[in-house]
Amino acid sequence: MTASFPIVFALYPHVTQLDFTGPLEVLSRAPGARCICASVSGGELGCDSGITFSNLARLDEVEHAALLCVPGGLGARAAMESPEYLAAIRRLAASANYITSVCTGSLLLGAAGLLRGRRAACHWAWRDLLKDFGAIPDAARVVRDGNIITGGGVTAGIDMALTVLAEIAGVDYAESVQLGIEYAPAPPFNAGTPEAARPEILLNVKNRLHSLAAEREAVVRSTTAQTALLE
Amino acid sequence: MTASFPIVFALYPHVTQLDFTGPLEVLSRAPGARCICASVSGGELGCDSGITFSNLARLDEVEHAALLCVPGGLGARAAMESPEYLAAIRRLAASANYITSVCTGSLLLGAAGLLRGRRAACHWAWRDLLKDFGAIPDAARVVRDGNIITGGGVTAGIDMALTVLAEIAGVDYAESVQLGIEYAPAPPFNAGTPEAARPEILLNVKNRLHSLAAEREAVVRSTTAQTALLE
Repeated sequence: MTASFPIVFALYPHVTQLDFTGPLEVLSRAPGARCICASVSGGELGCDSGITFSNLARLDEVEHAALLCVPGGLGARAAMESPEYLAAIRRLAASANYITSVCTGSLLLGAAGLLRGRRAACHWAWRDLLKDFGAIPDAARVVRDGNIITGGGVTAGIDMALTVLAEIAGVDYAESVQLGIEYAPAPPFNAGTPEAARPEILLNVKNRLHSLAAEREAVVRSTTAQTALLE
Repeated sequence: MTASFPIVFALYPHVTQLDFTGPLEVLSRAPGARCICASVSGGELGCDSGITFSNLARLDEVEHAALLCVPGGLGARAAMESPEYLAAIRRLAASANYITSVCTGSLLLGAAGLLRGRRAACHWAWRDLLKDFGAIPDAARVVRDGNIITGGGVTAGIDMALTVLAEIAGVDYAESVQLGIEYAPAPPFNAGTPEAARPEILLNVKNRLHSLAAEREAVVRSTTAQTALLE
C-alpha cells in the first residue's frame, strides 16, 4: 500500500452514524490512511441519531478514493434520488481499489449502477431490493465480489472493515487493530438476525419497518426506471 | 420509564468516536429517549478519528441525565485533568438512574470519585489503572455494580448499551433493537482480547500503546493525588 491511502466516506443527511463509524474506527488505523468524510454540499450534516457532523468535504472536490465506503441510513431514500450523490460515488468508484458499503449503502451502490450481476450484502429487511438493481442479494454478513465488499446491517460494518483491512495491510495488522478496539463481541441476547430472533420479535421489527419499507421500495422502483432510461 | 428519558453523552476533545456511537445508536432507539451530546464548552469538538461534531450542548447547561454515558478516547488524559469536566459528570451522576462508561471512560468516572469500592470494566490495556481510583478492575466485557454499568474497550459499548436497554425497556425491546441493527457479529479473526490474540500480536499492540500508557499513568497518579487533597 502507498504512503497515503485516501479513504472516502460518502455521507448524506440522515445517514446512520454507526454504519460509517464502525469502518471509520477500523480503517482510520490502516497504515497511511487519510480518512475523508464528504457529502454533496460539504459542511454540516445531521445523522439519523440526531448528532451533527461538520467540516465535511464536498464530494465533487474529492479527487480520488483508494477505498470508497457508502454507509446506509434512513436518508438513503433521498440520496437514491440525488443525481449529484450517485454521480459522485460512480466517479470515485471508477478508480477505487476497493468499493465498500454497509447496510442499505449497497442499495446506493446499486442505484449508481455499480452492482449489475454482482453479489452484495444489505440489511436483512431491504436485501431483496438489490434485485431491482440487477444485483444478487447474499445473506452473508460480509460479501466480496471482485473489488466490491459489502456488509449487512449497521454493525456489520466493523466485520466488513476488518476483512478489508486484512487485504490492505495483512492479517497480522488487522488482528492488532481488532485487539486495539477490543473487538470480542458478546451480545447479551441472540436476536441479531431474522433467523435467530424469536418470531414475535421479528414480527415486531417487521411491522415497525413496514411503512418505511413500502416507501423505500417505491423509490427504488422509480430510481431503477430512471437508471434504465439513462442507458 | 418516563415519556422523556434524557441520555447524556459527556464528550471531550479526542474522544473515540465508536466508544459513544455504539451506545448512541442503541440507546437512541429506547422509548422516550432524548439523546444529548454535550461537552464542557459545547459547540464543536473533534474526535480522535479526525471527524468533527457540532451543535453540542454545554455540560453545565444540561439539567439532568436519566442515563449518563462517559466514553473513552485518547483525550481522556486531558479530560481527567479538567475540573469542569469531572465536576459535570459528578453532578449529573448524582441524580442519574444509570451511570455508564465505555473503554477508558471508566477512568474518568474513577477520576470523578464515582468508583470507590466499585467493580468496573475498562479497555484491557488500561484496566489496572482503575485501582488508583479505589475501583476493582473486572475483566468482564460488561460489568454491573449497583447503578454503574461499565463496558470494556471501544466496541464493548454496543454490548453494554444492549444490556442497559433491556433494563430500561425490557428484553423483548432490546432484542428488537439488536435485530434492527443486525447485531450478529462475526469477527473475521479471533484476536479481540489479550487472551485470544497471538502472542506476537499482543506484543505489537502493547509496544504501540506503551508510550501512551506511561503518559496516561502519570496523569492518573497526579489526578489521584489531587482528588486525595480535595477530600
